[in-house]
Parts: sequence; C-alpha cells; structure tokens
Amino acid sequence: MRMPIMTAEQYEDSLRRLNLVVYMFGERVKDVVDNPIIRPSMNAVARTYELAQRPEHEDIMAATSHITGKKINRFTHIHQSTNDLVKKSKMGRLLGRETGCCFQRCVGMDALNALSIVTFNIDAKYGTGYYKRFLRYLEYVQENDLTCDGAMTDPKGDRRLPPHQQPDPDQFLHVVEERKDGIVVRGAKAHQTGALNSHEIIIMPTISMREEDRDYAISFALPSDSQGIIYIMGRQSCDTRKLEGGSMDQGNIMFGGHEALVVLDNVFVPWDRVFMYKEYDFVGQLVETFASYHRQSYSCKVGVGDVLIGAAQTAAEYNGTERASHIRDKIIEMNQLNETLYCGCIACASEGHKEPSGTYSVNTLLANVHKQNVTRFPYEISRLAQDIAGGLMVTMPSEKDFRSPEAGKWLEKYFKANPDVPTEDRMRILRLIENITLGTAAVGYLTESMHGAGSPQAQRIMISRRVNLQQKQIAAKKLCGIK
Amino acid sequence: MRMPIMTAEQYEDSLRRLNLVVYMFGERVKDVVDNPIIRPSMNAVARTYELAQRPEHEDIMAATSHITGKKINRFTHIHQSTNDLVKKSKMGRLLGRETGCCFQRCVGMDALNALSIVTFNIDAKYGTGYYKRFLRYLEYVQENDLTCDGAMTDPKGDRRLPPHQQPDPDQFLHVVEERKDGIVVRGAKAHQTGALNSHEIIIMPTISMREEDRDYAISFALPSDSQGIIYIMGRQSCDTRKLEGGSMDQGNIMFGGHEALVVLDNVFVPWDRVFMYKEYDFVGQLVETFASYHRQSYSCKVGVGDVLIGAAQTAAEYNGTERASHIRDKIIEMNQLNETLYCGCIACASEGHKEPSGTYSVNTLLANVHKQNVTRFPYEISRLAQDIAGGLMVTMPSEKDFRSPEAGKWLEKYFKANPDVPTEDRMRILRLIENITLGTAAVGYLTESMHGAGSPQAQRIMISRRVNLQQKQIAAKKLCGIK
Amino acid sequence: MRMPIMTAEQYEDSLRRLNLVVYMFGERVKDVVDNPIIRPSMNAVARTYELAQRPEHEDIMAATSHITGKKINRFTHIHQSTNDLVKKSKMGRLLGRETGCCFQRCVGMDALNALSIVTFNIDAKYGTGYYKRFLRYLEYVQENDLTCDGAMTDPKGDRRLPPHQQPDPDQFLHVVEERKDGIVVRGAKAHQTGALNSHEIIIMPTISMREEDRDYAISFALPSDSQGIIYIMGRQSCDTRKLEGGSMDQGNIMFGGHEALVVLDNVFVPWDRVFMYKEYDFVGQLVETFASYHRQSYSCKVGVGDVLIGAAQTAAEYNGTERASHIRDKIIEMNQLNETLYCGCIACASEGHKEPSGTYSVNTLLANVHKQNVTRFPYEISRLAQDIAGGLMVTMPSEKDFRSPEAGKWLEKYFKANPDVPTEDRMRILRLIENITLGTAAVGYLTESMHGAGSPQAQRIMISRRVNLQQKQIAAKKLCGIK
Amino acid sequence: MRMPIMTAEQYEDSLRRLNLVVYMFGERVKDVVDNPIIRPSMNAVARTYELAQRPEHEDIMAATSHITGKKINRFTHIHQSTNDLVKKSKMGRLLGRETGCCFQRCVGMDALNALSIVTFNIDAKYGTGYYKRFLRYLEYVQENDLTCDGAMTDPKGDRRLPPHQQPDPDQFLHVVEERKDGIVVRGAKAHQTGALNSHEIIIMPTISMREEDRDYAISFALPSDSQGIIYIMGRQSCDTRKLEGGSMDQGNIMFGGHEALVVLDNVFVPWDRVFMYKEYDFVGQLVETFASYHRQSYSCKVGVGDVLIGAAQTAAEYNGTERASHIRDKIIEMNQLNETLYCGCIACASEGHKEPSGTYSVNTLLANVHKQNVTRFPYEISRLAQDIAGGLMVTMPSEKDFRSPEAGKWLEKYFKANPDVPTEDRMRILRLIENITLGTAAVGYLTESMHGAGSPQAQRIMISRRVNLQQKQIAAKKLCGIK
Repeated sequence: MRMPIMTAEQYEDSLRRLNLVVYMFGERVKDVVDNPIIRPSMNAVARTYELAQRPEHEDIMAATSHITGKKINRFTHIHQSTNDLVKKSKMGRLLGRETGCCFQRCVGMDALNALSIVTFNIDAKYGTGYYKRFLRYLEYVQENDLTCDGAMTDPKGDRRLPPHQQPDPDQFLHVVEERKDGIVVRGAKAHQTGALNSHEIIIMPTISMREEDRDYAISFALPSDSQGIIYIMGRQSCDTRKLEGGSMDQGNIMFGGHEALVVLDNVFVPWDRVFMYKEYDFVGQLVETFASYHRQSYSCKVGVGDVLIGAAQTAAEYNGTERASHIRDKIIEMNQLNETLYCGCIACASEGHKEPSGTYSVNTLLANVHKQNVTRFPYEISRLAQDIAGGLMVTMPSEKDFRSPEAGKWLEKYFKANPDVPTEDRMRILRLIENITLGTAAVGYLTESMHGAGSPQAQRIMISRRVNLQQKQIAAKKLCGIK
Repeated sequence: MRMPIMTAEQYEDSLRRLNLVVYMFGERVKDVVDNPIIRPSMNAVARTYELAQRPEHEDIMAATSHITGKKINRFTHIHQSTNDLVKKSKMGRLLGRETGCCFQRCVGMDALNALSIVTFNIDAKYGTGYYKRFLRYLEYVQENDLTCDGAMTDPKGDRRLPPHQQPDPDQFLHVVEERKDGIVVRGAKAHQTGALNSHEIIIMPTISMREEDRDYAISFALPSDSQGIIYIMGRQSCDTRKLEGGSMDQGNIMFGGHEALVVLDNVFVPWDRVFMYKEYDFVGQLVETFASYHRQSYSCKVGVGDVLIGAAQTAAEYNGTERASHIRDKIIEMNQLNETLYCGCIACASEGHKEPSGTYSVNTLLANVHKQNVTRFPYEISRLAQDIAGGLMVTMPSEKDFRSPEAGKWLEKYFKANPDVPTEDRMRILRLIENITLGTAAVGYLTESMHGAGSPQAQRIMISRRVNLQQKQIAAKKLCGIK
Repeated sequence: MRMPIMTAEQYEDSLRRLNLVVYMFGERVKDVVDNPIIRPSMNAVARTYELAQRPEHEDIMAATSHITGKKINRFTHIHQSTNDLVKKSKMGRLLGRETGCCFQRCVGMDALNALSIVTFNIDAKYGTGYYKRFLRYLEYVQENDLTCDGAMTDPKGDRRLPPHQQPDPDQFLHVVEERKDGIVVRGAKAHQTGALNSHEIIIMPTISMREEDRDYAISFALPSDSQGIIYIMGRQSCDTRKLEGGSMDQGNIMFGGHEALVVLDNVFVPWDRVFMYKEYDFVGQLVETFASYHRQSYSCKVGVGDVLIGAAQTAAEYNGTERASHIRDKIIEMNQLNETLYCGCIACASEGHKEPSGTYSVNTLLANVHKQNVTRFPYEISRLAQDIAGGLMVTMPSEKDFRSPEAGKWLEKYFKANPDVPTEDRMRILRLIENITLGTAAVGYLTESMHGAGSPQAQRIMISRRVNLQQKQIAAKKLCGIK
Repeated sequence: MRMPIMTAEQYEDSLRRLNLVVYMFGERVKDVVDNPIIRPSMNAVARTYELAQRPEHEDIMAATSHITGKKINRFTHIHQSTNDLVKKSKMGRLLGRETGCCFQRCVGMDALNALSIVTFNIDAKYGTGYYKRFLRYLEYVQENDLTCDGAMTDPKGDRRLPPHQQPDPDQFLHVVEERKDGIVVRGAKAHQTGALNSHEIIIMPTISMREEDRDYAISFALPSDSQGIIYIMGRQSCDTRKLEGGSMDQGNIMFGGHEALVVLDNVFVPWDRVFMYKEYDFVGQLVETFASYHRQSYSCKVGVGDVLIGAAQTAAEYNGTERASHIRDKIIEMNQLNETLYCGCIACASEGHKEPSGTYSVNTLLANVHKQNVTRFPYEISRLAQDIAGGLMVTMPSEKDFRSPEAGKWLEKYFKANPDVPTEDRMRILRLIENITLGTAAVGYLTESMHGAGSPQAQRIMISRRVNLQQKQIAAKKLCGIK
C-alpha cells in the first residue's frame, strides 16, 4: 500500500512550487524557502515529515487513515480513539523537544478535526452536505501529506462591537460576493503561525455569532498561494541574528517559528472548499471545538520545556555548579512544573470522548485547565533557567568577538569555567537558554503560550462554564446538613 | 455468582466483632464503633461499602476479581489494566466528594497491589513462595470484602541512623523471634489512618535497607485485633466538637477521619501471612511501589476540593457576593487548581504499565509529580475558600448560642445576609469550610496532603531519579550545536 | 511626673470591676476574667501593659502624650511623627512575638488616631466642636491607660443594599432617638477582637455613605459595660482545649485572642462622647483613615511569623532534620516572606505624613499593599511550617494519653527522635505549630490576616485608587515616542 | 558656591575625551559615544546629570558633600543619614521610570560608600592611611561629578577552587608586580554595567578570602581609559534593532543599558588610588557592604516596573480592553508586586544605621530580602504585562513594513483597534512592552534583576546569616512551655 507520507526533502520541494506573496521588512520576499529568517521555521515543519519516516517514532508520528486505510502522517489524521488523542499529545512533546520551538503544524490538524465534527453536526441539523465535502478535502490533504494553516484569529477592531457593527466591516473576515461557482471573501487573520510553510490555509470564524453576523459565519480552505492572499511577516525578538551568518548567537542553530498577518483581499473560494456558510448557530461550536483541540496541542511546550531543562542542567555542569543543592532543587522544580503540564495534555486526551461524527474529542474542561497552566508555568521555568544559567547569558559578547583575534583570546580565557568544557560550548548552551527565554523561541515558549489558542481569560470563561458547580454545591450542602 | 461485597451495615457489624485495644484521652475506649469521636471515620469507610452497592457507581466502585472472577469491591482489587488505574483515581475523587474527608480505605488497596508485584519478583529471584501465599491471602480479603490498613511509617527515632544502629532497636519494626509456626515482631507504625476501622493490618518496611538491616526487612498481614496490638488515637484539630452533641459546629455532620499510633508489642505472625522475610534487597522496591500507588491515591483530595469549592460558592451565594467579579474569579482559580490535581492522578494512571506479575502500576514519575502538587494546591484552595467565606467563619458563636433564647435571637437577626437563606444554613456552610480548612478535615485535606504517602522532599527525590535528564541534555546540545 | 501607665495586675483588676453581659456556649458567663477560654486573651492584652513597664521595651512601648506631656502607653498615643509610626509597627511585631497571637489592643489605638484626624476635619468644614470633645476623651483614655475596642464592622445584611434600604434597619448601627443629653443607638458590630478585655468601645461606621444614610453616619465611645451592650463570644478552632486542664494540647499555654459579636440594644450615648453625628460626607474619610492605620497594624503578624519560624526551626532540631538542605531552604523562605511583610509595615510608616490636625498618618497606598501581602504570606509560611513539622503534628495523641500509664510509655518511647530532646518537648513544639496553623491562633494568623482590617478586595480597590497610573502612562508613552 | 554638577552636555563631552579600547562584533569601536548600540546607554547615564539640574528633582538627585559642603550629584555622595538612604532609593525609582532601563550609575555610588566604611575600618585595625587617601579621591570624583563603574565580579573560573588554586591565576584579578610608585594588576571583571560610559573604574574583590589569597585582596580606582584596559561589549537581546535606523521597533526610542567584559592586562595603579592591599581579612566586609548597598539599588526596578505598568494600562486602552474586570485586576496585581518591591528598598534604607566612619549603611537583612524579591516579582509583572498586551506584541511586522506602501496599508487597516488611537501608537506601546519583557531592556529588568548584585542564592545565604533564629526559637519555646 502506498504511504502518502512525504519526506522532508519532498516537503521542501513542494514549498518551492508555491507562489506566495510575502512581505518582510517592507519588501517582497523572493525566495521564501531560502530566506534565512524564514528557513528555520521551514526546518521545524520539515521535522514533522522527517520523524514520521523513522521507525522509532512511527507509532507516535504516523496513523492509519480512517477513510483510506493508508498510513498517513498523524498531522493529517482524524482521531479515532482516546489513544489517538494521547499520541497526539506525545507527538507534540516529541517535536517540541526535537525542535526547541513551535513546529507550527498542529493548528491545521486541529482545524481538520474540528471541522470533521462540526460539518457532520451542521448536516444533521440542516441536511447540508458539508461533511462529505470535507471528507473529500481531507482525503486530498492526507494523500498529499499537506501542511495546513488553521486560521481563526481576526483582527477584531473595536473589541466592544460585534462583527456586523464594526466601522470597518473587514475587521472580521466575511463573504463579500456569492457566485455560482463559489464565494468571494475579504478580511485578515492575525498571528498566523507557520503560514509561509503551509500548502493550505483553513479559515474559521473567531467568535460566537448571532444572526446579524451571518456573513461572517464562514469556514473554508484555500491553497496558500491563492490569488489575493498576502502574507506580512511578524518580527520576533532577535530575528535578525539569523542574518548575521554565524552559528552561535542565534542559540537554536536550526529551528524556529514564525507568525504572519494573512490578508485575504477579495479571494475567491470554490464551493467544494466551503465547509460552513452562514450557519451562524454553529460558529460557537466550531470555535470551541477547535480551541479545545488546540489547547491540548500546547503539549509541545512540554517538549520545549525538556530542552530548557536539559540546557539548564548542561549550563550548570559547564558553570561547575551542578552539585549545589539549590541548583539541583531548581532543576527538580523545573521538572515538576513541566511534568504537571504533561499531565494536563495527557489527561484531557485520555478522558476524551466520541463525537457523533466518530471523531474523538478531548475533555474540554481539562484541555482548558491544561492551557491555563501553560500560560503560567513556562514563565516560571524560564525564570529558573535564567537563575541557573547565570548573568553571562545576557552579557556575553558576540560570536564575532569570539572569533576575532583581539577580543577572542580574552573571551576564550575568561569565559572558561569547568576545565573540561570548551568555552565555546559554554557560550552555545547559554545562547540556547537566551533563545528560549528572551529570543526568537521565547515568542513561542512564552508569549504564544500565553495567547495562542486563546488568551488566559478565554480559558477561565470555559472553565467556569464546564465545571459542574451545582454537583459540588449539592455535595457540600449534604455534608453540613443543609436541606 | 455470589458477590463478596458487604453492605455498610454488615461492615459496621463486622467491626463490632473486633476486640481492639484502643486508648484515647488516656483511657481505654470500650465501644470503638459507637465512640462519637471515632464514629464519623467509621461512617466514611462504610461509604466505600455503600457506594459499591449503588448501580450508578458500580462501574467505578466495583471490579471483577482476577483470581475468582467474582464481582468485588474495587478496594480489594488488583489492577488489571490502565483502565483499572484510571477508575481507581476516579473512585478516590468520588469518595472524597461524598465524604469531604479522608475515607481511609485506599492504603490497604495500595498495599495489596504493591505486594502483588513485589512478592512475585522476590519469588522470581529467590524461588520463594510468597506470591502464592499472597494470592491466598488476597482471596480471603476479597471474599470477605475486608478493609485493610496498610502500615508503613515507622517512628524512625534518630533520623541520622539506619534501623540496626538505632539506640532503641524498636524504632523500626523488626522480627524478634523466629518460630516454627511463624515469627514474633516488635515495633510501631505511626500516623495510621483508619486503623480502628480496619479488619486487617498489612505491615511493610518504611525505607530502603542494606544487609545489616535484614531483621527489619519484613512484611506481613495480621487481623487488626491480634494479641499485642495497641492503638493510641491521635487527636485532631477540633476533635472534641464531636462530643458536644450538636449538629452544626462540627461542620461535616457525618464523616471524618482518624489517625492512630499502632504499637506491635511482641506480636506473633503465622508463616502464611508473611510476605517478605529478610529479603532486604526488595525493600526499596516495595516502598517505592507502594508509595507510587499511594501518591496516586491522593486523587481523593480532588473530591474534597470539590466539596470545598461547592461550599465556597454556596457561602458566596449565602453572603450575597456571588456575582462580584473577584469572587467568580476566585472560584475559577479554585477549580483550575483542583482540576490540575485531577489531571495528575488521571495521567499517572492512564500512563501506567504492566508489571511481571500482571499487575498494572502507575507511572512513577507522574504519580510523584501529582503528589507534589497535592502538597501545595489544597493550601491555596483553602486560602481562597477562606477569602470567599468571610471572617464570620472564625468569629461565629457556637450552635448552643444559636439555640439559646438570649443569644440566639441576636445571631438569627444579625447573621442574616441573603434574605432568601435561613441564617442557620449560612452558619452551617461556614462551619463546613472551617472544618476543611482549620478543623478535623483540615488534618486530611492539608497536613495529610503534605505528609501522607511521603513528605514533599521524598517526591522530589523520586522526581530527580525518574526524570530522564540525559535525554533532555542531548536534545539541548544538538539544538545549539554542541558536539 | 505621674506616669499613667498601668501594670498588668492593675489591668486585670480593672477588668474585674466591669459588669459585662457575655454569652458563650448558650450561657451567661459569670467570671469573665477567670473563664479559661477567655483568660488567655486577657493575658495577651495584659502583656501590652507589662512590656510598657520594662526599660528594655520602653522606647517602643511607651510614648509622651502630646496633650499632657506625660509618659503614656503607646496604645493610647496619637502619632506625632513618622518615627512614632515606625515604632507602632515595631510594637506590633514585638507583641506578636511575645504572645504568638492577636493581642487585640491595636484596634482602639487606630480608632483614636483616625478620630483625631477626622474630628478636626469635620470641625474645619462645619465649625462643630468634635475635636475638642475628642481630646478630652483622649486625655481620659491616656490618664487611665484604658484598652479600647475600635468597632467598625456592621453585620451588613443584604450586601446589595445601602444601610437605609435594608429590610432590617439595624443591619447597620444607627441612631434611633435624639435626646437633649445624648442619643440612643441600635445595631451590632461583628468580629470584635478583644471586646471582652476592653474598658471602652469606640464605634465607627463601616462604609462610605450618602445623605440618605445620615442616621448611620455616627461615631462615639462608650464604657464597655454600658447598659444595653451584649457580647456573644465567637468560637475558635480548638477553643475547648483550654477547658481540658492540661498544659500541652493547647499549644500556646498562655496567650490567645477572641472575637465577639457586640450587640447595642438601644444604648444611650451622652453628647460628650459623640464624635460624628450625621456628617455622612466624612464617613468615607473616617473609614479609610482607620483602615489604613489598621492595615499597618498587621505588623503583628510578623511577630507571630517569628514565633512560627522559631517553632519550625526547633521542630526540625527536635526531629533531627535541621541540617537537611531542603529544611534550611524552607526556613530561609519563611524568613524571606516574613521580612517582606516587615518591609511593608515599616515602609508605610516611614513614608507617613502629617494631617491638618497634626496627627501623622501612614502612606495609604503602602499600608494597603502591606495588608494585601498579609492576606497571602502567612498562609505560605504556615504551609512551610507544616512541611517542616512533619505529620506527627496532626496525628499525635493527647496530653492525657502521654500522662497515662498504659499509653504514655509507648508515646514516650516511640515519639523520641533527637536523643537529646525530651519527647514532651517535641510534642509541645508541634502543638504550638498546630495552634498557629490550625488551632486557636490560626484564627488570628490566617483568617484574621485575610479579613481583618478589610478583606483582600478592599485593599485592591484602595490600591487601584491610590496608584498614580497616569504618571506611569506618561512615562511609558514618552519612552516609546507617543505624543 | 560653585556647584560641581555637570550638565548632560558636559557629560557627553567629557566622554568624548576618553580614549577607550572597545570591541564589539569583533571590531574595535571608534566613536564610542556615537555608536548607535552604545548611545542609548550613554543617554541613560546623561539623564542622571540632567535631572540633578531640575529644581523639581533637586531634593532627590542632589546632596551636600560632607567633605566640601558643596552641592553635588547624589551619585557621588556618601550617605550621611537614613534620610539620605531613603532618597537614594527614591532616586533609583525616579530614574528607572524616566529611562525605562538600567541607568548604570548606581554601582559606582555603592562602591564609594562601601569603601568609605571599609577603608576607615582597615585603618582602625592596621593604622594604615586608606581612608584619607579615599577621601581625596572622593573629593576628586565629587568636584568633577564623575561617573564611576564599580567592578566586583571576577570570571571565577573553576567554581570549586579559591583564587590562588585556579589553574589560570587571572580568573580572579590580582597584583602581579609591586613597584615603588604603585602596583601592576591583571585579571578581568565580567558583566560590567555601564563601563563604557564611566570616567572611572573602581575595582573590588568578589568573594571572601583567606591568607593564601592575599594577592587577590586588592581594591583601587583607575581612569577608565588607563593603558591596558580593554572593553568587550556584551550583546543584548534585540541589540541590533538599534542599527536599523527606525524609531519604533526598538521600543524604548532613547534609552538602554549595556554590559561589558573589562580586561585589565597588566595595568599600573599608582599608590594614591589603592584602597586595599592584601588586607584579606577585610575582603568579606567590603564585599558584603557593597552588596548590601547594591541590593538596595534595585529600587530602580520599581521605576522600570512603573513604566511597564503604564505601558500595560496604555496597551489595554489602545486594545479597547481596559474596562474588563480581569484586566483591571491584573493591573492591580502588577502594582501590588511593584509597590511591595518599593517597600523593600524603603525599609532597608529607613532602617539603616551609622557605621564608625560616619557613613550610613542599609539594613543588611532587609536589603537582601528586597533583592530576593527583585529576583522574582519583575518576572511575574512581565508575565502579566504580556497577558494584557496580547499576542500582537510578538507577531507584529516591522516598522519598515508599516512604512512601506504595499504592506503598510494592511497594517494600518488591520491593527487599528480603539478607533480613537492611531495604529502607530498601538504598535509603539506594544514594542515598548516587548523591549522590557523580551528585548534589550529585559536584560536589565529580568536577568540583571536575577543576577545583578549577587544571584538569588547569595541573598539567601545572607538572609540565613542575618536573621536572629535564636530569638525566634526562645519566643516559641516560651509560649509552649519548653524550659
């Protein structure tokens, strides 16, 4: 049986065939794949292809398609059991550890799974044919092992107003023209992680809607280089270090992430790629389902946490402080926090359930609880890593100084600590910690942990909705004798 | 098929048939079952029998014996799958919520499961017959639906010395005479939760041992009223409120826990109840296996947390403050912490594995991480509960004042808040919060959460042992280019 | 010059001369001073008299009256400098450390100081004569070295309604009759710390008021045994241990606190003791000024923290664990938290300022910040103390068991840890930790820290009002180039 | 009377006259003052001159020399009272708020004050003449209003070895030749904040020493451009944004800090600038005294906290979310933490004391407690700022995109939120938050808060030494009846 799993090389080639309109630093980017600022993020996505080819990771990284029976990359899979959900969480940790950054591909997986549930449910109510349409699209994605960008967050304009009352109607993406063969849409999606490394972009609405907002209640998929799509790269802390040509100062010498503003300027979408059209009463369900899946996806931060713990332990050894009891205790605390996060992404998966479409969904309450912890613990893990690393992490001169004859000899001499460790290695590990706690990877490990898949307050609202307060109150009243 | 599951009434009767030697407040307790200070703890254990009879809880509370095929109470079950382990965690939460206290029966279950693993392993190494002997004992426990006290913690004397070097050799329980028909042992076990409500007591050593300590490397089971066993009741905060005769001031009007010092003063143990005898090299394994199971068992605190959250929400409603945004946020935070604990006990179970004996064991790392969080979050949940409850919780006069003609009228008048709620109900719910955060139940919810199943540092040591630091370091080094 | 400073004995005698109407456990208390439950709280107040007599504490405990020039107890002093305010904070810590509990006398001092400011300000606006009247009263208090209860907290009934709209008009204390020689008032004050040990009670309103609430806008002082005042004792966790007759189980063998509901059932107040009468526009100022002073007063918890740290360190030594690095680190952390609290009460004092009346007032923002930390850190300090203490703290049998021939020998034997320390001493220090973290003193150290002088949210509101956000925004905008 | 206070312009001119040997990015820096990466840090130091000229800040920023009686910049002042110490703390906050970064000049002030105490004490023991020599040097500094770099931290090499046992003897700075007219020294000082903006460098040893280390027990001052001193610039997160030529992306458009490795390669020091020479028994005192002063100096972070709070509030207003209760609560929490830090630096100052030399020193315990909080709270304040800011902070395209015709129009359109606020302003405030929490200023606000003036563990050791545990234990024992 043919396995529709691409190699990393095939993936890179496929990206070269795209014709994306990308702006960065005020200019059109010509060779997107080879641009040194974008390339590390492509490398990270490529890792999702590469690992799926490795026998030792196959169980986690690959799955069997429920529609074709073929072996596919798990990132294109629709979860068929809680075991699948648990493996998804483990895949996130594995790739986080392998790349030390955001590997970007989970959002499309989450969009596909959410649509598999909601299209089925819309059909059940309205007799529409979205689910069948979706399955055809899914097969296309699986067969070609595509990377999809799942795009939800609209710019939102004036936060106090619903979509249809915005002074600028495009602040939420909406349909502007209905044609025989499809629809024309306009709007934008902000904070799009991995957009430039995706073959497809799957658009979903961003908040629950009422009837007045029906033009905004749309979901669809497009090839990422469709006419009218414009990408504007976001800049990350320390992004331009990747342009400096060295190999030390960027910390993570291979991998990174990126985010972009995606503008859809009157883009045409054929009907067979439209998965929701004005069924405003299902928007809330789609948003919530996607959000729950995506909150689970923050299992990846456990893997980045692994890297940071490993780096901190290594820095301690290189500094010669690894036996101090307070250092050991801080390493334990980092693990305690990191494994608590792991418990969250495992529990929301193992406590998952089957939806009418057959797709397995995570436990919404626990997925939100997990993500809420992700908005907190990585910050504390980072703080502890900086504690262990020592001040040199932020006062260390550049690689160019290290390589220069005049300055280099002093750095070589004075930054030597553990006599068995090359000075360069000490500098490298500190740069990695800088990268994750202040640099390009901090965007993913910290700020994205805060706001990705919904800001902390969004999770708190979901927690308050999903917790069974009444059951708890009944238990309490009974115990103290209140009738 | 006969179901060897007792009713609560049968359980109470069976306790009456025991002839325990119990001291409390300096005197021998005659009617243990009916003593008002002990009775609530008996009620809590009885709940483990009662719920197993209820169809709606059967899936969680009952199991099928792997030795007899009969339906048994899960508390006597040997876990046959990760699903069994997950159900154990859920059983803990359920009973915690039902009783609002420590229901005491988990420790025997954990001892049985640990012995099922370790006796098998001893036999494999030494060709002994412990496992078969254990299975016969297990069948006896299952058939009679017995409550077992699992007893591990020795007094330990001078913490700097191993057992055999203690000035007083009895600071660790040990064999003092070997006879043809069995052994004679001496020593004590401290902090024995639920000892007075148990039919059996299962003794295990408390720390890893070397050859010199082999006389201390013993494990066995005894009927709780064996000749030479003396129980001295520990006192809890607010214990004597249960003697006052009212129904409000004790907070939890039905359930409680208890702890006792159990002294074994030259007690005879027949060979068929001895499960380890001087195999000092397996002591560490037994301790660690039991500890992991028992750390999982702190799922019960999630249930007590449910009660406390329910009580806090109810108090807010009775106080008339439940709509304040800060109150709502604190309720969410309590849930966030409580559900994070839940994730821990679910994850360590669902990530469990099969031991050579066939028994399923929890993931040791995650069980320790879970317990470590239990040493922290209940304190913060309690703090938030006290915040929401208001100061009246600790300044409220007694039930007797409330019932008295002179004082009562003023309390009725001035402690009225929400006009729709009887003053008495407001007082009751505050007393329940007091009970869990300062009173008898605080012993279980707070201090036992801290020290039960090992003090925090014990978990930290296990975490540092079980975490794969090297894997993390390799990942980090690769990413920053260290060869 | 005569020093109007009483001895502890004189204080006790003066209390015997009072004729208080006190209810406890549903009965009228006859010998208030000698009642074993109340007595420890009297002992604690007596300490404020005793220490003022000691040369080594004179600088802190005594002051010079700005109206008579005589040496007086600082608790009756009007602060004349920031130095006075700093000494007040230090007096709180000293007495907290001396008594290990709430010593109750600060609230009257805070009421006197607040009135010294607000009566002056009312006069300035309305030409009334409150300030002169207040000074006469103050002189009486100083000359007789009286303990005053400052009473602010009304029952408040339905939290959503202002005083004049309450279904029961007495939920806020108010004037019910105006007479030629004075006024008649009705209502109650809840949570009155130290009420039974006070010579005087100073009544203040509890929340800001508008014109419709003017009948509630009153402040006055009364002898504590005035006709119509009824006291109903609140019960504390473990209160009845004081009735048991031993000396160990109560933990703190000498000192305690108490709280009472104080009912004013149509009580007459002569005009010369009325300090505010319907000037509703000054109620907010009085509440806020008193609250700021009283939030500073939580310097006392630093002293109780000292006791708890000392007890934890002693317990570690008695347990034989004091050299473990994690124990040492926890002791450091307890100190870190405790001294951070100290910084708060020192800073709000040293940053104080002079009010128009000449009285020095604390920095309101910092006093609120201090109190907010007091609602948090003692809980964490307690948690760490319980960690260090070990589980025995809550599983230890009673003193009666220890003294009994049968049980006692086992306790003596098996609770021995450090060979140089009597078992009894180990039990005593653990009982003290229990007392402060779960028992009678926990009411003061924890719950009162939470709610006394205003619940946490009250401080947060004040912080948001007092912080100069605009100044911070201007600074930020300037730095990033926003015009 | 002539005021020896320079203007900002004079300061800049004076720096131009220096001939520093500086390396950055592997090359010798020619125009240090005008280098765009270094310039913002010069601007920040210049602010310490500029504000001292402003009447509204004179009380805080200027002082009267105790040796000349002239008005001087407080940064060159020897503290003559606790009031001086308090003003120092306020000066730190003021400048932190004015610059939003590390303004670098405090370290020299702290070195001068520490030397004023220790030189006096050495003379008292050994009859040397250091103090007089020091005062002459001090007068020179005051008269010329010089900026001094206080240099303490040696590279330290192998952490397990004392100075004299290091394989490379230069890992701690030491004397290599004693001459008639002075000494020759060799070594390096790492992490030197503000080194390139200083006229003088004051060298101190970094750890307590024993007799064998006497060659390392030296302290002295040098002009910063002395023959043999080499500076190698450390790189900061996002440093090269300052080279990009725009005005938005660097966040703080005017100010910054810098750190450098300072190498002393056989540098000659004349005797009149040597303040300690082999008096190894005073090294500990010098280190500790300097450290206490410098831990107090972290009052500056309160000022940076002010900026971050102001920025977060502004971002909320620009985002249109400032009225959400959770946003308001987070702003309060940021203030709570920031003002708690303020309490620390005020309390350690107001509780200061006079040393034999007449210099006032801070309370060591409280200064350490303060700094310890500084290693924690800024991280949490940053986390909250990122929460409020929203994800756009890290996904926002560059200023060049904003200015470009193709990309700019989309950014202008889609990053508009609050209709009354220019899109550019929203981007600017978010860039400022990025700057402080991830960019160049994060080096100062976070990592320097962690490690500057000693890493967290250094403070914990001092706290454990300075806390009076015995007093606390006596108090505890007395209360529970232990004799």
